[in-house]
Amino acid sequence: MEPKSRTIALVVEYDGSYMHGMQKQSELPTVAGALEAALGTLLGQPVRVVNAGRTDAGVHATGQVVSFVTESGADLYRMPVALSAMLRSAHISVVRAVERAPGFSARGSALARTYRYRVLNRPAPSPLHEHRAFHIGAHLDLDRIKAAANALVGEHDFAAFCATTPVRGGTRRTVTSLAVERERDFIELWITADSYLHHMVRIIVGTLVQVGRGQRDPDDMLRLLEPAMRADAGFTAPAHGLYLERVHYTDPL
Amino acid sequence: MEPKSRTIALVVEYDGSYMHGMQKQSELPTVAGALEAALGTLLGQPVRVVNAGRTDAGVHATGQVVSFVTESGADLYRMPVALSAMLRSAHISVVRAVERAPGFSARGSALARTYRYRVLNRPAPSPLHEHRAFHIGAHLDLDRIKAAANALVGEHDFAAFCATTPVRGGTRRTVTSLAVERERDFIELWITADSYLHHMVRIIVGTLVQVGRGQRDPDDMLRLLEPAMRADAGFTAPAHGLYLERVHYTDPL
Repeated sequence: MEPKSRTIALVVEYDGSYMHGMQKQSELPTVAGALEAALGTLLGQPVRVVNAGRTDAGVHATGQVVSFVTESGADLYRMPVALSAMLRSAHISVVRAVERAPGFSARGSALARTYRYRVLNRPAPSPLHEHRAFHIGAHLDLDRIKAAANALVGEHDFAAFCATTPVRGGTRRTVTSLAVERERDFIELWITADSYLHHMVRIIVGTLVQVGRGQRDPDDMLRLLEPAMRADAGFTAPAHGLYLERVHYTDPL
Repeated sequence: MEPKSRTIALVVEYDGSYMHGMQKQSELPTVAGALEAALGTLLGQPVRVVNAGRTDAGVHATGQVVSFVTESGADLYRMPVALSAMLRSAHISVVRAVERAPGFSARGSALARTYRYRVLNRPAPSPLHEHRAFHIGAHLDLDRIKAAANALVGEHDFAAFCATTPVRGGTRRTVTSLAVERERDFIELWITADSYLHHMVRIIVGTLVQVGRGQRDPDDMLRLLEPAMRADAGFTAPAHGLYLERVHYTDPL
């Protein structure tokens, strides 16, 4: 009898400060590379993972998802703890392991991705949130930011919020929700979209920060969706404030 | 005319992972030592600080308070940002600077201190909370922990929760509130008391963890307050889950 092949999805958390991003790169330590090495050791056979979000170097994740196919019969219940122990020095943890139907792909089956961006908005920096939030000492006007953010919800041409051109498949994307809230000294932006252009969330944040500082009008966002050029939008907010929080599937993980 | 002398209080945040505790020690980097050095440079005269809480190495603070007397006329509004910039590499930040009436002492004027202890309670560790929370993979029963914690509220002899003996001034302390809550994968304990014995919060947490794992009965807490010996209580939970959150004064900082 042939060994039964299983499709497995892992929910993965990592501190992006230590890796050269999610995607495998030869010679450089990446999250995918570390996961494949640990899985290969644990399962005793080579594994190729597919990931739901291509987070850049410095970007964190609490809910990245990877999937792979294996003929190993390894116990899924024990897999997160075993993999987390192996990946501890790489600052990666596997939070959950779930079997999915054949054909499931962490990337291809994803309906949408939710990212969070954390801004620390107070005069003094925070050593407890170093490399975990973007510190802005100047006051940000939350009402202005919220007004500008609302304009981005829906299907639009986000070419102005894309670091690279041309883009295969075009620059239209659908933002299904975008919430901005202040919680004590933090301003948090939560965004959900079907998929994202290169640096899209970070350019949105940089542009909203300019609105919040009074350097740009909230109505300016409409012009940026007309479409416009990358140079028309704001700066790219740093990677270390960004978190991939959740990947959405028909059957939630 | 003599220079006017001012009493100044600073609210201080730090990542305790990098320092040998709060209190000054010759030869070792400490939070008080780093603050005095930065203040000396900024004010152009030597400064001695008094601190509200003697946090051990590894213990964090979001609301430590120090006070000092100075004849410098330095602008209090700019002091937090200037000091934070000088203390950045020491992982210390000054959040606020306030003038207080003559005679104010961060330690002597404090009415009570609030500490928080964070437990990450899920099978997998969290790279984003490494050195920021005590990871316990085994399930903890929150109802049992709450029942045990309630017994500690009030004035009691906490000798069993003290790492050192004998204690000057005795071992009676008043816990005015002790709340335990679960928030997603974290269990957080918030405790307010007039003052604390050596390692008191960490031994309370270690004992409550044993209750939560079913290794100790919630009623056991009554016996530990009879009074009892250090050996009767639980283990000392690690420093890196503990935060000094707030110091209370008649006139809040």
